[in-house]
Amino acid sequence: MLFFGGDYNPEQWPEEVWVEDVALMRQAGVTAVSLGVFAWSQLEPEEGRFEFGWLDRIMDRLHAGGIKVVLATPTASPPPWFTLAHPEGLPVTTDGVRLTHGSRDTYCVSAPAYRAAARRIAAELAGRYARHPALALWHVHNEYGTDCRCDLTAASFRGWLEKRHGSLDALNEAWTTTFWSQRYSDWAQITPPRATQYLPNPAHVLDFRRFLSDELLGAFVEQRDLLRAANPDVPITTNFVQGGWVSVDHARWAAELDVVAVDHYPAAADDEAEAETAFGGDLARGWAHRDGGEWLLMETAPNLIYTPGRMHAKEPGRLTRHSLNYLARGSRGAMYFQWRQPRGGAELFHSALVPHAGPDSPVFREAIGLGRTLKALTGKVAGPVVADVAVGWDAPSWWALQAGGLPAAEIDYLAGVRQVHRALYRSGFATDFVFPGLDEIGARLRSYRIVVLPFLYLVSDASAAALRDFVAGGGHLVVGHLSGIADPAGRIRLGGYPGAFRDLLGVRVVEWRPLAPGATIALDDGEQGVRWSERVETAGAATLVRYAGDVLAGAPAITRNRYGSGSAWYVSPGLDDDALRRLLDRVAAEAGVAPVLPGLPPRFEAVRRGELLFLFNHGDVPGTVPLPGPARVVVSGREVSGSLTVQPGGATAIRLE
Amino acid sequence: MLFFGGDYNPEQWPEEVWVEDVALMRQAGVTAVSLGVFAWSQLEPEEGRFEFGWLDRIMDRLHAGGIKVVLATPTASPPPWFTLAHPEGLPVTTDGVRLTHGSRDTYCVSAPAYRAAARRIAAELAGRYARHPALALWHVHNEYGTDCRCDLTAASFRGWLEKRHGSLDALNEAWTTTFWSQRYSDWAQITPPRATQYLPNPAHVLDFRRFLSDELLGAFVEQRDLLRAANPDVPITTNFVQGGWVSVDHARWAAELDVVAVDHYPAAADDEAEAETAFGGDLARGWAHRDGGEWLLMETAPNLIYTPGRMHAKEPGRLTRHSLNYLARGSRGAMYFQWRQPRGGAELFHSALVPHAGPDSPVFREAIGLGRTLKALTGKVAGPVVADVAVGWDAPSWWALQAGGLPAAEIDYLAGVRQVHRALYRSGFATDFVFPGLDEIGARLRSYRIVVLPFLYLVSDASAAALRDFVAGGGHLVVGHLSGIADPAGRIRLGGYPGAFRDLLGVRVVEWRPLAPGATIALDDGEQGVRWSERVETAGAATLVRYAGDVLAGAPAITRNRYGSGSAWYVSPGLDDDALRRLLDRVAAEAGVAPVLPGLPPRFEAVRRGELLFLFNHGDVPGTVPLPGPARVVVSGREVSGSLTVQPGGATAIRLE
Amino acid sequence: MLFFGGDYNPEQWPEEVWVEDVALMRQAGVTAVSLGVFAWSQLEPEEGRFEFGWLDRIMDRLHAGGIKVVLATPTASPPPWFTLAHPEGLPVTTDGVRLTHGSRDTYCVSAPAYRAAARRIAAELAGRYARHPALALWHVHNEYGTDCRCDLTAASFRGWLEKRHGSLDALNEAWTTTFWSQRYSDWAQITPPRATQYLPNPAHVLDFRRFLSDELLGAFVEQRDLLRAANPDVPITTNFVQGGWVSVDHARWAAELDVVAVDHYPAAADDEAEAETAFGGDLARGWAHRDGGEWLLMETAPNLIYTPGRMHAKEPGRLTRHSLNYLARGSRGAMYFQWRQPRGGAELFHSALVPHAGPDSPVFREAIGLGRTLKALTGKVAGPVVADVAVGWDAPSWWALQAGGLPAAEIDYLAGVRQVHRALYRSGFATDFVFPGLDEIGARLRSYRIVVLPFLYLVSDASAAALRDFVAGGGHLVVGHLSGIADPAGRIRLGGYPGAFRDLLGVRVVEWRPLAPGATIALDDGEQGVRWSERVETAGAATLVRYAGDVLAGAPAITRNRYGSGSAWYVSPGLDDDALRRLLDRVAAEAGVAPVLPGLPPRFEAVRRGELLFLFNHGDVPGTVPLPGPARVVVSGREVSGSLTVQPGGATAIRLE
Repeated sequence: MLFFGGDYNPEQWPEEVWVEDVALMRQAGVTAVSLGVFAWSQLEPEEGRFEFGWLDRIMDRLHAGGIKVVLATPTASPPPWFTLAHPEGLPVTTDGVRLTHGSRDTYCVSAPAYRAAARRIAAELAGRYARHPALALWHVHNEYGTDCRCDLTAASFRGWLEKRHGSLDALNEAWTTTFWSQRYSDWAQITPPRATQYLPNPAHVLDFRRFLSDELLGAFVEQRDLLRAANPDVPITTNFVQGGWVSVDHARWAAELDVVAVDHYPAAADDEAEAETAFGGDLARGWAHRDGGEWLLMETAPNLIYTPGRMHAKEPGRLTRHSLNYLARGSRGAMYFQWRQPRGGAELFHSALVPHAGPDSPVFREAIGLGRTLKALTGKVAGPVVADVAVGWDAPSWWALQAGGLPAAEIDYLAGVRQVHRALYRSGFATDFVFPGLDEIGARLRSYRIVVLPFLYLVSDASAAALRDFVAGGGHLVVGHLSGIADPAGRIRLGGYPGAFRDLLGVRVVEWRPLAPGATIALDDGEQGVRWSERVETAGAATLVRYAGDVLAGAPAITRNRYGSGSAWYVSPGLDDDALRRLLDRVAAEAGVAPVLPGLPPRFEAVRRGELLFLFNHGDVPGTVPLPGPARVVVSGREVSGSLTVQPGGATAIRLE
Repeated sequence: MLFFGGDYNPEQWPEEVWVEDVALMRQAGVTAVSLGVFAWSQLEPEEGRFEFGWLDRIMDRLHAGGIKVVLATPTASPPPWFTLAHPEGLPVTTDGVRLTHGSRDTYCVSAPAYRAAARRIAAELAGRYARHPALALWHVHNEYGTDCRCDLTAASFRGWLEKRHGSLDALNEAWTTTFWSQRYSDWAQITPPRATQYLPNPAHVLDFRRFLSDELLGAFVEQRDLLRAANPDVPITTNFVQGGWVSVDHARWAAELDVVAVDHYPAAADDEAEAETAFGGDLARGWAHRDGGEWLLMETAPNLIYTPGRMHAKEPGRLTRHSLNYLARGSRGAMYFQWRQPRGGAELFHSALVPHAGPDSPVFREAIGLGRTLKALTGKVAGPVVADVAVGWDAPSWWALQAGGLPAAEIDYLAGVRQVHRALYRSGFATDFVFPGLDEIGARLRSYRIVVLPFLYLVSDASAAALRDFVAGGGHLVVGHLSGIADPAGRIRLGGYPGAFRDLLGVRVVEWRPLAPGATIALDDGEQGVRWSERVETAGAATLVRYAGDVLAGAPAITRNRYGSGSAWYVSPGLDDDALRRLLDRVAAEAGVAPVLPGLPPRFEAVRRGELLFLFNHGDVPGTVPLPGPARVVVSGREVSGSLTVQPGGATAIRLE
Repeated sequence: MLFFGGDYNPEQWPEEVWVEDVALMRQAGVTAVSLGVFAWSQLEPEEGRFEFGWLDRIMDRLHAGGIKVVLATPTASPPPWFTLAHPEGLPVTTDGVRLTHGSRDTYCVSAPAYRAAARRIAAELAGRYARHPALALWHVHNEYGTDCRCDLTAASFRGWLEKRHGSLDALNEAWTTTFWSQRYSDWAQITPPRATQYLPNPAHVLDFRRFLSDELLGAFVEQRDLLRAANPDVPITTNFVQGGWVSVDHARWAAELDVVAVDHYPAAADDEAEAETAFGGDLARGWAHRDGGEWLLMETAPNLIYTPGRMHAKEPGRLTRHSLNYLARGSRGAMYFQWRQPRGGAELFHSALVPHAGPDSPVFREAIGLGRTLKALTGKVAGPVVADVAVGWDAPSWWALQAGGLPAAEIDYLAGVRQVHRALYRSGFATDFVFPGLDEIGARLRSYRIVVLPFLYLVSDASAAALRDFVAGGGHLVVGHLSGIADPAGRIRLGGYPGAFRDLLGVRVVEWRPLAPGATIALDDGEQGVRWSERVETAGAATLVRYAGDVLAGAPAITRNRYGSGSAWYVSPGLDDDALRRLLDRVAAEAGVAPVLPGLPPRFEAVRRGELLFLFNHGDVPGTVPLPGPARVVVSGREVSGSLTVQPGGATAIRLE
């Protein structure tokens, strides 16, 4: 089965609407819906009193309609009664403000009262529905990520720190508490980062973010184990959220999930939305590498793109293109937020398959067509996406680069990784993500010919060694500035940047010269540096490109170090998209890595998954793709050979014979 | 009597200044001053101890000088002793911060201690001055609008909600609390909107704003009744404030006032200040419709315009022009903030008739001339302003559109209404305001030939029916986008926008496509849409203008539906000022509505009130106005016929013979 | 000895690094380091338990290496144990949030527990090290300036107010509490300014800032007296911080210090950094006038400039140029923050002489050369900087102009003073600062021929009289707008601006017309006014320049009043840099004041201190300076005559024979 459907909230509607819903779902070919994500106050209207009748009825009705259920535990939004009964279970801000109900996510994950309440409702659901024939997947909670700074959190944080650091001396050393007289002489002195006079200690903040990720994971695992005990055959997931401020380290969490599920909301109205879609899908596939790269798109907006400040209605065909793109990049289907647009509530204008206007609407009509396409693809979309190139992703490095006091305020980890991915995407290379912070990194690297590391600011000795082995064994490593700077505690590796990689790269950086927004620095190959420059000294590396302006004129800018059987490239300046793409094309050429399908027309995209080749025309003119051999269009069954024309805005999947 | 004067704070000055003040007032022709607005700490320096001697003396002195008193109850600013005695009477922010004294408006209107203290000082003033011969008008409080989120407010809010919704089930239904698990199982769970994790429930926020307006009104009524009891012959008012964030629903309040009084501060340095003046005056007149449209300008800045970030000194003549403009639009006079500029305090640079420089100053000299003009107009400025066009104004719609989570962050209710008014103002049409949310809307609509509804987002079934009747009876209705979307609880009217008006307009909108700032969309009449576009389907309406660009090319943009004897126009795109003006001119032409005086020179304005015609030259060159017949200049008594020349910056009132 | 060195934090490093540190210091010619600034938690790891062993060892080691110690009391950053033991000693924000440790400066200076703890650690240090042979200077605390609004602060504030105002009636009068009903009837009603509903009383805020400065000074004096008692021969300082928001009135503090020490961090990447350096040095010298203008640069960033949002690496030679510039302007040396860049902590990327890259780095290499230069200058850099021009500086005026509710939001005291200084700097005039708010102002003024007063908003009668005497005695006074407006309590001087100076200037301003950013107003000498214009009437003054545009056309703009033997100029409009410079050049010509060295090439600077003339080439081409006679280059001993060529980026000191 391909998952096709979305979040469904029957509790918002009278039961006569349910009848229409199931009929419309069948019309659209919906195969699965997510139930109960925010239904706690409907399921347990008073503490300890449960009302499952309505859920029984809709589960049965969906089952009768042949629609599977992704059943959520509703623990992301405790009901108002929880607040009054357990005020200590509400989250507290860094300023000491205790938040209250009236929105969602109003809980402190470290509060025993919250954890007990969450276990209770999850256990009730498990007991009642674990063997319901409609149940396809458990969906624990929603978008874990809530932060709290209360005293209960402080206690839990201290426990976590004791485990991590072993002793207060070790913690003081790791956090460099000699700076600004911050040495702790008693565990009781340590709290979460809270409002203070000036800059906080970045190591304190970094460890708190690690703690928070682990603490939330603990809450997940508790529910998972309880659901698994009720029926070991039903897989369990939780929906990861991608975005500009993420509280959990998904790469570490993924090991605890049966299925990696992802909520993904591109935020650009233009072609960048497609680049974001590709990024989101590739990153999700990276997290899912234990499952052969198969994951599930749990939420995306069907007909809108939430751009900053404005909801952009997708152009005709774009819903289909986005959906097939996720599929091509490893998703087990396409689920949306949401099935039916609500009449009220904080997100009453958010996107839906059945909008306020009802089924007689552009989005529902496109959904019917998409449903047909997905049905035709069922059983045929499978198998891995094979990539020779991987990009490094490291949540702790991201967190560390969100601190204040950095050399430039504009340093943007996510933008940096996104830019590398976009360059590879535009050149048409299949691209994976790897996670240098995980223990298995050494083994993972062996699959790739090129690894690119943007902003790998924190790196352990073991990871640095694995990267050295990768290059020594013939790999091509591309390292950008601000990588290898610090150990995992955030302490600088001394003696010259990039400390962890100096020997591997054969360079030594003695001075950073970040550039102001809009400023450029000339390079001697005719390109220009942006955002960043540095004084680099080579120590073994060959200089490929030199700075040609400013006080750096003549100094190395881009270098390559032969190391074992491989090459380690250092890219000191920031580059704009085109220059970066040209550089990575050069690395690919040296490494013998080719795009998925050469010769694509402009604004075309090709993705190969298993035996299928997906082609996308994001442009507004038709384009013809040269094919490597005879092929068959999956949906129509039509045979093609030599080339295939894709209409503007179109997408198609073909099987190469 | 025409009111001419302003806020007077003798408590800030030694008594020898009072002597000069009265002499200067007489020199300027001042007829009335507002006393005691912020004098609580002078009148009741300690709880329960009163000092009225100084107020007696200045009241008597003013009376002796022939100057009337608008006597305020000083309850907008409790003295510091109140804070210490009744800390629970201070307001609390959404973050739980209890504010303290040191500014003004530091009270919680729901706190019994505050209400008791306010009643006590009001009763003392009533007892002492209700029959003072100088007393012309009671001025209760000042600019009601203070917000509080404390537990006392919560209790009062719950009482209000019980009355509004009847039951908790009804409230849950109205607020769609099934969204995000917000269902309330006990009234005690409901608080004012407070700091929470993410977006609040917009229905919760909307009801709180309605409650706050009613709660403040309750405080006003309490004082009003007490003052009225002391002497039923003295009229009672409170000063309404206009602005970008208003806490009270003036249209509803107006029914409880004897006189509608308004504080109005235009905020533009250029001609927009004059457009704002016209808007403020017309809106005030709308609120005062029960009084034949007569209201009182209680405060404006005589010599300054408070533009964002800068105090702009008015050019010579502008004080006079603004003042006469308010008069022409229904005001019973022109009162200013303030008489004498203070030496200290938070507003020490705010505007005054007697500035820091003293009477030997441009502003005081202009005031003397203005006083003479007003004296000449006394007894002649009276009667109604007659308008064929009305614009809809609805505070709850405004509040609802101040929520987060809207389709576009730039949606700006006030700007939208202002733009419609400005277009009508520039074309020279006399324009009223009507309030579709009031019960009497049906009767009110009968006076007009054209009604324009910008952003009437919330609308009840009854109001929608009244608007249908208006059109059926021959009216011309112009509806803009985002109107008729929701019921008064903020629940979307399903089936296609604009739900409440689909049948009347003969259109159905299936998709919104808000435009980014600066973006445009072509229309097939050569105009351009801005800010907003939509996918419109007609269902009976004639398409007058179509979209000509983007994915909407060819779809209806502006439509007209014949309905009964009238026409209902739908304007889907946003328009710039000129395009909107051309469209409304076209509607006016179809409706047979003409400007006040055709053929005005550029930057001229004409307003008719009763038998007088006011002419304004806001430009910097003289201009000649063609007159419909012989006339007499009121101030000079000079007869004119055929035409009248007005000097740059000048204003004049004539009586058409 | 010239001080050369910086903040040194051996507690951050293992002792083997200390050995390298002392060796490197000797290599660089370091003469002194600051120890212990943030070492409280290392010196007193638990309350009352002290660990001085490590400090003994490094003090002895430095002494053995011939390096002097500036020993700090570490009271700017109480350790975490302090928070738990004395939570009432933590600062509270205006919102009532009690801050916690985790950064620095987490103390309330009014809390007895903090004061006691600070005295205890200072006494321990005094007892142990007051006679240590390495000790050259006591460095009390660090950058005093921490604000608190707690109840302990409130109590202390009330005591201070009683002393300042004598009675509650006098306070009410000074604060104009008749405005907005703020009259206090009991001292207990007065708190620090805290979160309130709307604008606070500016007199309240102003007095709180005065109090805070005095309260912090009290804490300094307490430590100073204790250190002095331990050994009267060791001078005592604290490091003043310059910046955009300064809590202390340095001009008043300076009288309590043995040495004026200053932290100075220019914030511009371009030539403005040099103008800022000159400003910082001249202002510091002003504060140090009791010491013949000799002060000490305690901190600056050696190799970085912290521009907004970005750390800018200084170009080669710039460290040297900045350092010599401070020296030329009166500093006793050049100390840096910091010696060795830390591995962790909130400022891990801040500047250091020994950066992360180690001594094999551009900055350390330049430091070695600078050390040699300073050694050559030792014993020769001495004596006063003689200036004929002085600029007025008044912290309370600055604070008053940081209030809300001013006529224009852009009013910027610091920018105004900086602009005047920059104009004089660019014209090459030696410039001092004077402090009109100090009692000794009369005597101080006698040294100058020109005094410029930008934004001297607050002025006492006595200071106004002193300024009148200065002009009567032949001085040239230049007064800018917004000067002389209010008395020291912030009450407006009535009758026309600039109240305190109307008679001296022979003008009367009756209306302000601030200009929007980017707007200009023509002047009849071809220049343009910016930021500000006014309606000026002359009353005795000669009009030199008139406004030529807007409604002010023809009105006086720049005037000169002959008064006694001198001249008082009034400059009503804001001017851009070039126009201001031309105006001040004209005043200088009339006053017979000449630049330090005429005929300098572009981007050159000359500063004379004692017998030495310092020449700076901030440009990127060589330039030749005409010399008034034969001279000797101090460092090389080379004789030059007629002229001297300075290389791009170079600086040199010569002794004129």
